[in-house]
Amino acid sequence: MEYSEFRPLDDKALVDYIKVTPSLLSIVGNNFADLTVKEVGDGNLNFVYIVVGSSGSFVIKQALPYLRCIETWPMTKERAYFETLALKEHGRLCPEHVPQVYHFDRTMSLIGMRYLEPPHIILRKGLIAGIEYPLLAEHISDYMSKTLFYTSLLYHTTLEHKGLVAEFCGNVELCRLTEQVVLSDPYKVSQFNRWTSPYLDSDAKAIREDNTLKLEVAGLKSMFCERAQALIHGDLHTGSIMVTLESTQVIDPEFAFYGPMGFDVGAFIGNLILAFFAQNGHANEQNDRQIYKKWILRTIEETWNLFHTKFIGLWDKHKDGPGEAYLPEIYNKLELQQLVQRKYMSDLFHDTLGFGAAKMIRRIVGVAHVEDFESITDPSKRADCERRALEVAKKLLKERRKFQTISEVVLVILEHQA
Amino acid sequence: MEYSEFRPLDDKALVDYIKVTPSLLSIVGNNFADLTVKEVGDGNLNFVYIVVGSSGSFVIKQALPYLRCIETWPMTKERAYFETLALKEHGRLCPEHVPQVYHFDRTMSLIGMRYLEPPHIILRKGLIAGIEYPLLAEHISDYMSKTLFYTSLLYHTTLEHKGLVAEFCGNVELCRLTEQVVLSDPYKVSQFNRWTSPYLDSDAKAIREDNTLKLEVAGLKSMFCERAQALIHGDLHTGSIMVTLESTQVIDPEFAFYGPMGFDVGAFIGNLILAFFAQNGHANEQNDRQIYKKWILRTIEETWNLFHTKFIGLWDKHKDGPGEAYLPEIYNKLELQQLVQRKYMSDLFHDTLGFGAAKMIRRIVGVAHVEDFESITDPSKRADCERRALEVAKKLLKERRKFQTISEVVLVILEHQA
Ligand SMILES: Nc1ncnc2c1ncn2[C@@H]1O[C@H](COP(=O)(O)OP(=O)(O)O)[C@@H](O)[C@H]1O
Ligand SMILES: Nc1ncnc2c1ncn2[C@@H]1O[C@H](COP(=O)(O)OP(=O)(O)O)[C@@H](O)[C@H]1O
Ligand SMILES: [Mg+2]
Ligand SMILES: [Mg+2]
Ligand SMILES: [Mg+2]
Ligand SMILES: [Mg+2]
Ligand SMILES: [Mg+2]
Repeated sequence: MEYSEFRPLDDKALVDYIKVTPSLLSIVGNNFADLTVKEVGDGNLNFVYIVVGSSGSFVIKQALPYLRCIETWPMTKERAYFETLALKEHGRLCPEHVPQVYHFDRTMSLIGMRYLEPPHIILRKGLIAGIEYPLLAEHISDYMSKTLFYTSLLYHTTLEHKGLVAEFCGNVELCRLTEQVVLSDPYKVSQFNRWTSPYLDSDAKAIREDNTLKLEVAGLKSMFCERAQALIHGDLHTGSIMVTLESTQVIDPEFAFYGPMGFDVGAFIGNLILAFFAQNGHANEQNDRQIYKKWILRTIEETWNLFHTKFIGLWDKHKDGPGEAYLPEIYNKLELQQLVQRKYMSDLFHDTLGFGAAKMIRRIVGVAHVEDFESITDPSKRADCERRALEVAKKLLKERRKFQTISEVVLVILEHQA
Repeated sequence: MEYSEFRPLDDKALVDYIKVTPSLLSIVGNNFADLTVKEVGDGNLNFVYIVVGSSGSFVIKQALPYLRCIETWPMTKERAYFETLALKEHGRLCPEHVPQVYHFDRTMSLIGMRYLEPPHIILRKGLIAGIEYPLLAEHISDYMSKTLFYTSLLYHTTLEHKGLVAEFCGNVELCRLTEQVVLSDPYKVSQFNRWTSPYLDSDAKAIREDNTLKLEVAGLKSMFCERAQALIHGDLHTGSIMVTLESTQVIDPEFAFYGPMGFDVGAFIGNLILAFFAQNGHANEQNDRQIYKKWILRTIEETWNLFHTKFIGLWDKHKDGPGEAYLPEIYNKLELQQLVQRKYMSDLFHDTLGFGAAKMIRRIVGVAHVEDFESITDPSKRADCERRALEVAKKLLKERRKFQTISEVVLVILEHQA
């Protein structure tokens, strides 16, 4: 049976829905007495239910036609369709790091997927708790290199690329949300913006009055709107990743579309930098977080370096493959192959720093803040952490083309720590 | 009545078609005794008929499912649909310089449009004949500034932009043709390439072995494939423009899609540079073409400068309009507004030089050559003209970011003339 029109579910209605949905029913089994349903959505947008039955479990994510955090903000529930497309495509390319989709109902804007059972937690919470994830850089560089490489013109023919680009143009409303909250609002007076006031009042003002910063952000916004480089996740911050010590799982690609790769790589690295600068706010007498901060920096370095190595590895492996950007008959000599790869990766590195910095800035003076800082209760201490992150972000955004290696980025971070 | 399936027309079948097509019939009137039909297609792709009746006239253009010039090369006849979309959209934005569409039949891949009656001729032929068109720069800068500005994010909301981008992704086969013949084939050994042999053998080889050139072309190709900046004509060479001394009309936008603006501006300017270097081959005792060459250079300068001025004029006029790339609340100060405009136009200038140069190169060592050079019968003289153009193109492509004004480009052209 299918539901003929959309309705938002609650715990009770969800059970009724499962009863008539074979693909879900077959997972949890028929013993409904044992079934537990728990709404756990902590994100800004959607409702997420964990469903555990006697024979199995899954997560149900439902999009409603507005934002969960600001109910007066309408937002197409079609985002669930694009999230599903992206989960499936990225899952196909990197099954180790993407939860399996069991069920999708477009009418109900409802996704059934693997429940990432405990001890999986949201990476951001692990970073706040000071937990080291020794495999994180390895895993996330795997995910990013595969999903980005295989959906770019380095692997696609231009024929399949344009078809997919066209399909994901349908996710324009989510793109617009990013354009607004990441690439516009922080640089103007907006009712949605907030910051640790009064401490950061002049910092926020300085951002609104920084011509060089605004010039650079304009370039990034154009790139975000115009450049269909690969199927990006679109929201790859540390709140979209669930981890254990052994497992790394990327969830929540509802912002997915064909956009610039640097937006994803930057989201991840930018959020690690935020996590770094929040550590001083989490330090206490038992733990000064100094060792943990070093681990974060190492993870930033390894993420980029591994991503770089793996991405180039995929390129080399598939250089005679279907991709039409660099035809082997043209880029036939080793020296030339290396020259174009260096240029490509250097541009991608600068895009990464630019978008990463923009994502940092918006988390400090824009609408949606991050728990890394929000959980620092003393506002003056929080503001001090945030200001340092802001200074690094501004430098990275404005001077990104001067950076050649991730170590230089780490040096700048170190210069700005207390 | 409608034709239920595609069939290629000949003169006779076309008359039958007109008889059952009210929108065409009403133009030429019912007196078929007076009707003349003449196939005039001189392009590489399609059939074009001029139809003149007692009460009026029109042109019929029909796409066949292959290239006219290389019949073994299949090519979707859906291109007529995109040509019509572009003629209508560009015509709406700039009616003075785009022929009116009277009729479109998607099944038949057939367009009925205004007949650009004599003395209209193809601009390329006028350039070969040495005719000055005093309004050309004014007109074409009008066309380019309006069609490009109004279809970019400087005027579009991102919502409408992405919808249109998606639609024009359907014209992918024509994009692929450009990718191949403009941005790939000249840089590799290809059965389709030809050049004035043996004179240019080593020049063609040098292009295939020039790593810097190939690196730069890769960047342009990526931009062509990925960047949906505006609805571009896609084939704006001097063979796609019909002129009289008073009128300038842009035809043949079957390659239209959302791509980089510089591809159009570069096509026009690059083809003027080709025309310039062909002049020595057309010079004779009556006319050394020196004055004409100066006019071409003036037209190149005026085209860019007028385009620049008009484009900025449209931007200023609509800065509080629907466009979402540069929100007025962010780019609110005059100084900042000018800073972002300078950056935008400087990038566009460099794209223009890059694509323009690529279009020049492909006309000398690629598949489709231009009458400007082909009409020079002495091969050694032709090769000399072509080599100079090639040298300029290579310099522009490789060093384009060093150029700040169009006058500097003209200086390079002058340095390379005989
Ligand atoms: N597959 C899953 N397994 C376990 N928990 C999940 C799963 N998907 C989401 N969650 C939980 O629900 C929260 C919100 O999910 P998310 O997809 O990020 O929604 P939103 O789009 O609203 O941000 C996550 O932070 C996580 O705690
Ligand atoms: N509207 C028109 N009025 C007069 N002549 C035209 C018109 N359209 C095309 N032609 C003539 O037909 C030729 C081929 O048309 P074009 O649209 O360029 O076809 P193709 O796509 O095959 O290059 C032009 O070069 C021009 O001589
Ligand atoms: Mg989330
Ligand atoms: Mg989300
Ligand atoms: Mg033509
Ligand atoms: Mg051309
Ligand atoms: Mg044509």
